[in-house]
Amino acid sequence: MSPYFRRNFINCLSGFKSLNLVGTADAEGQTNLAPFSQVFHVGASPALLGLLVRPDSVPRHTLANIEATGFYTLNHVRADFVKEAHQTSARYAISEFEACGLTAEFRNGFPAPFVGEAWVQMGLRFAERHHLAINGTILVIGYIERVQIPADCINPDGFIDLEKAGSLTSAGLDAYYEAKKVGRYAYAKPDQPVSEIE
Amino acid sequence: MSPYFRRNFINCLSGFKSLNLVGTADAEGQTNLAPFSQVFHVGASPALLGLLVRPDSVPRHTLANIEATGFYTLNHVRADFVKEAHQTSARYAISEFEACGLTAEFRNGFPAPFVGEAWVQMGLRFAERHHLAINGTILVIGYIERVQIPADCINPDGFIDLEKAGSLTSAGLDAYYEAKKVGRYAYAKPDQPVSEIE
Repeated sequence: MSPYFRRNFINCLSGFKSLNLVGTADAEGQTNLAPFSQVFHVGASPALLGLLVRPDSVPRHTLANIEATGFYTLNHVRADFVKEAHQTSARYAISEFEACGLTAEFRNGFPAPFVGEAWVQMGLRFAERHHLAINGTILVIGYIERVQIPADCINPDGFIDLEKAGSLTSAGLDAYYEAKKVGRYAYAKPDQPVSEIE
Repeated sequence: MSPYFRRNFINCLSGFKSLNLVGTADAEGQTNLAPFSQVFHVGASPALLGLLVRPDSVPRHTLANIEATGFYTLNHVRADFVKEAHQTSARYAISEFEACGLTAEFRNGFPAPFVGEAWVQMGLRFAERHHLAINGTILVIGYIERVQIPADCINPDGFIDLEKAGSLTSAGLDAYYEAKKVGRYAYAKPDQPVSEIE
């Protein structure tokens, strides 16, 4: 396997991934925006998300800013700005918001910028950092402090209809997908067949 | 927020997730199978995947078996066995393979069972374990030692066509989706517009 083949191949193996733009600002208020496909649920109470950062990758400004300010935003990517979102991975000298035509929104005193175009936006506060010795990857865990989602994308039971919200999923290093529901199933019990949830 | 609402809500916030069945066996060869949506890429060289395990959740047999034998399999879920895959999350006294009608395949001396119905199958060897003090979650990192994928789902550049392979993505605790490609884009550079990869 060539290194290029290998990178594409291995990056696809985990399966489909989340797709978030991470918004930060440095101590002087200079904004930064970068795409991450390694954001995952860590816990519901307290509400925690994990973010994996490769120390040798472009988004290291993201890590520096999170450590400097303690805050960052996560913004789900939709198809109508997926090209701009992809382009934020380029190595810009200026803010990726400005370079890629996305809107930096500072709201209600939250210290990191939200992506105005995103329908699902979260504000996080840094909680904990782990160094994965095996390859130098950094795991950042943060508390979810703010959430903004269109009300009609939230079901009465708390389930968020990410398909309706237009959130994309990603694969490998560079592929983006829309999701189409197959089914939602009730909590599984040994003595009961699988039943559909509306 | 009620605890039920909160659990549904917070579990959706990260965005779409991968969906793997994790196959293990204990020291006596008793098999176990459980669905995980918290599998993610950690590194390409060496090839590493991470797996988050909630210590209070059903799949703790998975963790015990990984620690006992050092091996496990990851198997992408397809729509044609998604109900069986969901059902493996129930608390069975017997093997979930048997209880849910999925095929445990032991191949070429690999100590953990693959899911015969899966098109994307991986065999992993335990590498490293991290305890996330903040809420007791366990992060298991493993080396990818075996991969089996239909050849016509692998592009010449190494990219795996997970849509063609029928791999599903998941959201929240109980929702499953098919993916439909929006686009694949070339490595982003500051002075170039976004360009599509075939």
